[in-house]
Amino acid sequence: MIDTPRLVDQYCHGVLRTELGLGTFESHLAPAGAPAAAAGTTFFDTQTGFAVRRWCPPLLGLEPHCPPARYLARRRELGVLETGRRLLRASGITTYLVDTGPPGDLTGPAELAATGEAAAHEIVRLEPLAQQVADTSGTVDAFLANLADAVHGAAAGAVAFSSAAGVRGGLAAVPEPPGPGEVRGAAGRWLARRPAGGPVDDPVLLRHLLWVAVGAGRPLQLHVGDRDPGSLAGFAAATGGLGTDLVLLHSYPHHRQAARLAAHFPHVHADLGPVVARTGARAAAVLAEFLELAPFGKLLFSSGARALPELHVVAAGVFRGALSRVLGEWVGDGAWSRTDAQRVARMIAEGNAKRVYRLA
Amino acid sequence: MIDTPRLVDQYCHGVLRTELGLGTFESHLAPAGAPAAAAGTTFFDTQTGFAVRRWCPPLLGLEPHCPPARYLARRRELGVLETGRRLLRASGITTYLVDTGPPGDLTGPAELAATGEAAAHEIVRLEPLAQQVADTSGTVDAFLANLADAVHGAAAGAVAFSSAAGVRGGLAAVPEPPGPGEVRGAAGRWLARRPAGGPVDDPVLLRHLLWVAVGAGRPLQLHVGDRDPGSLAGFAAATGGLGTDLVLLHSYPHHRQAARLAAHFPHVHADLGPVVARTGARAAAVLAEFLELAPFGKLLFSSGARALPELHVVAAGVFRGALSRVLGEWVGDGAWSRTDAQRVARMIAEGNAKRVYRLA
Amino acid sequence: MIDTPRLVDQYCHGVLRTELGLGTFESHLAPAGAPAAAAGTTFFDTQTGFAVRRWCPPLLGLEPHCPPARYLARRRELGVLETGRRLLRASGITTYLVDTGPPGDLTGPAELAATGEAAAHEIVRLEPLAQQVADTSGTVDAFLANLADAVHGAAAGAVAFSSAAGVRGGLAAVPEPPGPGEVRGAAGRWLARRPAGGPVDDPVLLRHLLWVAVGAGRPLQLHVGDRDPGSLAGFAAATGGLGTDLVLLHSYPHHRQAARLAAHFPHVHADLGPVVARTGARAAAVLAEFLELAPFGKLLFSSGARALPELHVVAAGVFRGALSRVLGEWVGDGAWSRTDAQRVARMIAEGNAKRVYRLA
Repeated sequence: MIDTPRLVDQYCHGVLRTELGLGTFESHLAPAGAPAAAAGTTFFDTQTGFAVRRWCPPLLGLEPHCPPARYLARRRELGVLETGRRLLRASGITTYLVDTGPPGDLTGPAELAATGEAAAHEIVRLEPLAQQVADTSGTVDAFLANLADAVHGAAAGAVAFSSAAGVRGGLAAVPEPPGPGEVRGAAGRWLARRPAGGPVDDPVLLRHLLWVAVGAGRPLQLHVGDRDPGSLAGFAAATGGLGTDLVLLHSYPHHRQAARLAAHFPHVHADLGPVVARTGARAAAVLAEFLELAPFGKLLFSSGARALPELHVVAAGVFRGALSRVLGEWVGDGAWSRTDAQRVARMIAEGNAKRVYRLA
Repeated sequence: MIDTPRLVDQYCHGVLRTELGLGTFESHLAPAGAPAAAAGTTFFDTQTGFAVRRWCPPLLGLEPHCPPARYLARRRELGVLETGRRLLRASGITTYLVDTGPPGDLTGPAELAATGEAAAHEIVRLEPLAQQVADTSGTVDAFLANLADAVHGAAAGAVAFSSAAGVRGGLAAVPEPPGPGEVRGAAGRWLARRPAGGPVDDPVLLRHLLWVAVGAGRPLQLHVGDRDPGSLAGFAAATGGLGTDLVLLHSYPHHRQAARLAAHFPHVHADLGPVVARTGARAAAVLAEFLELAPFGKLLFSSGARALPELHVVAAGVFRGALSRVLGEWVGDGAWSRTDAQRVARMIAEGNAKRVYRLA
Repeated sequence: MIDTPRLVDQYCHGVLRTELGLGTFESHLAPAGAPAAAAGTTFFDTQTGFAVRRWCPPLLGLEPHCPPARYLARRRELGVLETGRRLLRASGITTYLVDTGPPGDLTGPAELAATGEAAAHEIVRLEPLAQQVADTSGTVDAFLANLADAVHGAAAGAVAFSSAAGVRGGLAAVPEPPGPGEVRGAAGRWLARRPAGGPVDDPVLLRHLLWVAVGAGRPLQLHVGDRDPGSLAGFAAATGGLGTDLVLLHSYPHHRQAARLAAHFPHVHADLGPVVARTGARAAAVLAEFLELAPFGKLLFSSGARALPELHVVAAGVFRGALSRVLGEWVGDGAWSRTDAQRVARMIAEGNAKRVYRLA
């Protein structure tokens, strides 16, 4: 009914290039940072696991819901490259925005694009960029100058910036940009105590980094995690009218607050992806909650997928099914017109992302 | 199936008396305080916008979901008065409780009643009342005495009090009434520093104001905004057994906590209105969440509408449809009896409000 | 369709042995701690009240949804013993885990087992245990030694520990165990100021008590109340890998956060019971929210029932109906296979509890 032939995946990572055993595969079904499944349980017994078993086996010539071991055997038989090709090309994702920041031996944007026969663009994560600059700058002055250069230079080639540490790093407490003296002091102390390769963990520096990025004019994606995005209202107010869009990532279970911020601030947008992808059979219900207060021009599909092309495929399939079901019901009830529903579906699937990221 | 022929709108505002262009009309679809729609988007592309396009055009002789420009043209053709009459008289709202506090050139209770062929009563907002008293009182003693007189005087003519600033103004931190010396000190400092017409922004004075209102015996409506109403548990505990009812307004997305407070405290009630009205096609789902823990005698319909009679109409239509759907499904499942469902529907639509506000 | 022939009720209390009038019966339908129903309302007009009227009258030979007074008359006609037998034996609960801690003249595990023709095991609540030890210990040293002995002794006969005060008592602020000197100091001050029979209200002692229980190796059930269980992430991190499971009780309306913690920490589990039982016609929706992020091996049924056997019956009936509906829909959509759905249903109904509590 509701048709979304092309998806822009506005936030994802690359995939692994190595063959995977059952245990390694299972570990990538877990939420980020989870140490292991409990004894007597498996991460296959989750909505993510069940969704992978629903959507992926048929793309490799197997029955849906076949046992994990059978799926993994078939995956190895085809090889990681051919598996990736079959899965990604069936996803309907025509553009990937790829966060290349987190470490891991994953395919970059170009390789993901080639595998998936799609376009791909880079999202530059701010914290690793700052760490690289720190590694190669001898003084505080050089570090701060090089940092500004690096961010503005990255803006030329990247489609967006992302920040994982910014939200936890005290952004909620003080939304305004720190003053030059404060930044110099914080940079000096951080550089002095920092072990080689150490992370940016100073709250003043993190705020400075975000404000440098705001000045570079690219959309800024903020990992909200399971924090209440209401705590970002101050930062949203402070950055309004500057011409830089904010995109809130991963706000579940506070996604209604993310939608509310998107309604209140013209430059704030809400990402749908990993939430919808991780909740499988429940995706329509979660998606519908986003659609309560958020203006329809402010919601963006993404997969949030990482390491397994199965996760890109599942996100796309689950999202499409959920969107079609939710909007289709509203059309059936007479609450929405079919024309509006189709228009909104394409906005969320690709149009909003094309506008926000100025994609061709 | 489930029939609610009469609605008491227990919290709303008046409507504009002027003809409206498309842009001004759209701005009244936005959430309160939102500066503007993002470039490339419109507040018509929201649940509120879609609900207006569903419910209102047929009342003016147009097709549902017709384009906004066509609707606005028809609205101007009929004129603002005739439009208001047609819309409000079709809403099924038989009594309006009207908060006259916020500034704006809106119709008052009598004019709204005449337009809608309904009854109307005034809700007195506490903060503007206190500001008026401050404008005309020469000393701290006079201010405090006049304030008490004004609140008790207003109680004679008003059906309820409302407070918008009280909840943000530190009520959560200290629920008890401030002592006389504390109040005198706060009043003195506030009057001294206050510019002419300045708002009540002193937390001690705001608490005092709420407690004066509690003593006046009328139900007190508290704007919770997007705060967690769980933070009001202390105030609810402190005001229990005094004979004054509390009504929590606007608790979304924390409405399950509002329902929980309504279950725990005999004098606490939860307002359904603006939440249900703003979520359009999702209203049944949100309403059902209220109905999880709240005793059915503690939920109150309202529209929360302001400026556009379309918003009163949408609230009524959406609420009725949602209530009928939710309760109808439970009857269909055998979870509720039809008799109970009909009885509960009328309680929420009008009966509870009549009891709480002692309406004829 | 989805079949759960046996339920392990992993958290409940006993039932009253006395005949009940309408008012007393109604008071047991209220949430814990609620003082009374508002004038003009009744706790029968809640989801709990409607669920009791749906599920219980037929078990006593009456029509579903008959008036409360008629049900109570029939209950007295049969007598409290026969009523308890008929209700509990129809519940499908084959094992009860009974928290014997809270005061009240309720049946213990053995009596509940006999009435319900089921197995029963004791859950030892930590705070009353500590209070008993304090009542009979003359010195700080004796108290601390006796406390350790009492907890380890109780672990031999009990199936789990529970704590109601631990979560509110500052666990969130400092998750680590307090040092020996800190514990001695806190115990000394508490014992000195404590009136006879006074509760454990010292945050350091409460933390010590929880850590003694963690060391005893039995699963520890934590009453989360309406707090955000995200605040327990520190305690969960500190207790990981020690071999003691944590079970989060009563997390509504923050149950999605409870599910998230259960996904993140191998030893953390989420209880479904009282939430599902209290929301009646909405149970399927609430249950489905738990099933978004929680691994299916980490969710546990319970009734949370207390005083009225009706509440055990309602919990079982509502849970079964909700589980069957939710999983049945997912099977119907093709999102889950029927085999998986049946397997997951039995895990949540009994299998997970058997694994966590090492039941035969």
